[in-house]
Amino acid sequence: MKRLLRSLNGEAVWPPPVWLMRQAGRYLPEYRAVRAGVPDFIALCTTPDLAAEVTLQPIRRYGLDAAILFSDILILPWALGHGLAFKEGEGPVLPPLRGEAGVAALDPGRLIQKTQPVMETVRRVRAGLAAEGFGETALIGFAGAPFTVACYMVEGGGSKDFAAVRGMAYGQPALFGRLIDVLTEATITYLSAQVEAGAEVLMLFDSWAGVLSPRQFRAHVIGPARRIVAALKARHPDVPVIGFPRLAGILARDYAETGVDGIGIDTGSDIGAMAGLLPDRVAMQGNLDPLAVVAGGEAMRAETAGILAAMKGRRFIFNLGHGIVPQTPPEHVAALLDQVRAG
Amino acid sequence: MKRLLRSLNGEAVWPPPVWLMRQAGRYLPEYRAVRAGVPDFIALCTTPDLAAEVTLQPIRRYGLDAAILFSDILILPWALGHGLAFKEGEGPVLPPLRGEAGVAALDPGRLIQKTQPVMETVRRVRAGLAAEGFGETALIGFAGAPFTVACYMVEGGGSKDFAAVRGMAYGQPALFGRLIDVLTEATITYLSAQVEAGAEVLMLFDSWAGVLSPRQFRAHVIGPARRIVAALKARHPDVPVIGFPRLAGILARDYAETGVDGIGIDTGSDIGAMAGLLPDRVAMQGNLDPLAVVAGGEAMRAETAGILAAMKGRRFIFNLGHGIVPQTPPEHVAALLDQVRAG
Repeated sequence: MKRLLRSLNGEAVWPPPVWLMRQAGRYLPEYRAVRAGVPDFIALCTTPDLAAEVTLQPIRRYGLDAAILFSDILILPWALGHGLAFKEGEGPVLPPLRGEAGVAALDPGRLIQKTQPVMETVRRVRAGLAAEGFGETALIGFAGAPFTVACYMVEGGGSKDFAAVRGMAYGQPALFGRLIDVLTEATITYLSAQVEAGAEVLMLFDSWAGVLSPRQFRAHVIGPARRIVAALKARHPDVPVIGFPRLAGILARDYAETGVDGIGIDTGSDIGAMAGLLPDRVAMQGNLDPLAVVAGGEAMRAETAGILAAMKGRRFIFNLGHGIVPQTPPEHVAALLDQVRAG
Repeated sequence: MKRLLRSLNGEAVWPPPVWLMRQAGRYLPEYRAVRAGVPDFIALCTTPDLAAEVTLQPIRRYGLDAAILFSDILILPWALGHGLAFKEGEGPVLPPLRGEAGVAALDPGRLIQKTQPVMETVRRVRAGLAAEGFGETALIGFAGAPFTVACYMVEGGGSKDFAAVRGMAYGQPALFGRLIDVLTEATITYLSAQVEAGAEVLMLFDSWAGVLSPRQFRAHVIGPARRIVAALKARHPDVPVIGFPRLAGILARDYAETGVDGIGIDTGSDIGAMAGLLPDRVAMQGNLDPLAVVAGGEAMRAETAGILAAMKGRRFIFNLGHGIVPQTPPEHVAALLDQVRAG
């Protein structure tokens, strides 16, 4: 069994399996070369040979324990018929979802057809890993969690405080509940199709989970995660699921009860202290600060050593606590991997 | 002894003392009337009769257990000679601090003189509370914590990810350490002067503490807080200090060891679960979501009831978990206070 899968199936693999969030991305010159040849980011996500190519690039360079499908969490609402554009340097722009009409306009019926390029990418990456001799690299499929996807849909993009989506959750609870329900069902369909196309592990990114009050977190983060994991386990009992409720803090303990096999820990959390709160049956993944990888040198070494020392003997997957940033020197990543692989 | 001071001195006062972060602010028509008559926000902060007036406004309207000095955390770097402007709707704008010259330009020698208007405001508020019959309302002075103040100085304002300041902490640790040191010493001087002018409680706002890795959190949040609290206790042993390391998560447990008498809990934290982690000798303050107060009605009632139920019997100060927002209907605040005062 591949190292990542062994870790997610109960074994304290050491040195830990390692991959990096956003490992396929702008810090790599080979990525920038591909990106320069397409008109926009959505085209890159929905052109299988290009998306498969950039997914494989960091594996060729670094031989990581996982490849993660190159895509975006907003491909799901896009496939439900919600508008989406990416403005250079500004991030995603969507029409802000409002009222019953906004939810009613979402069309789950077109999801499977519109995400065919994503499924084709999954098939090509899986075949590419085998063909290129990366027999130990597991393929991770993913989706944004319903709350985080709803954040972008209601705000119309990123936000400093997510006041619109939090306001809707408090002020229009029935409407917001329906939006979360539609996204939950669509996420199950979408992730299940990724498994059928060849994904060996699934990850659920809830990047903005931490902006919710604990009551809302239970309703809109934990509830949907539990439903998604249960539905996926019913269909694909052997495919592990990693949840990443970013900025959950102590609520990660409640999140661990959703049935996930692994849990992502963000940069701000003391991963050793979190290990004392979380049940042993959940593997932990994280949590090096991407800014430490930009700095490199002694700062990166000290942060990395602290994480490795805290996690030794536990089921652990080394990763960043947030996506790698574009200004990261690729040679710092190589030095990081040397240190992690030395345990 | 005033209810807030009793709570901070060891008594589980019930119903809990209550005040609200940013209780003097744009959601109040009487505040907007004063604000309309001054050219800019800094002028409001540095004109004692106006700053004292807006500090007292929410006390007259709601009779809260604390008045908090009307000022801004960036008045401290401004008083050290660092530039500062507030752009309407955009927040603060500062010259981004870079390199040795940026730190060397800070002039602690002018701090006392430049903050005289703040001290005069404190004196007027204290006198005003007594003169207007608010004998139970304690006066809170405050400062931004060194790390959060450094965030704005290095970024040149707010930021989505605080990459510049985090990058400086990793990449130029000696320089960043000197900046934190200068701010730590200045904060001690500034808060001590507020006590001498009449502040009965001090609060240290570390709004961006949560963006740091645990190692950096210990160096730049916990270390300075410990020094500040120790120095203040040496000079003013009877003045309680409340720390607010926002988004600290489980690291709040480490922060509680700094010597603070109270700790602020942000909206995303499960305050009942946090109570299980924090020592009883630290009072807890928080943590209603300001968006719940915008919504009002059942959403606000349910969130508030959950917090009160979790905190009953513990040393607790009811507050929001973040500042009140401008679109809050003042009558929702009145309804909230009725509920809190019924226990």
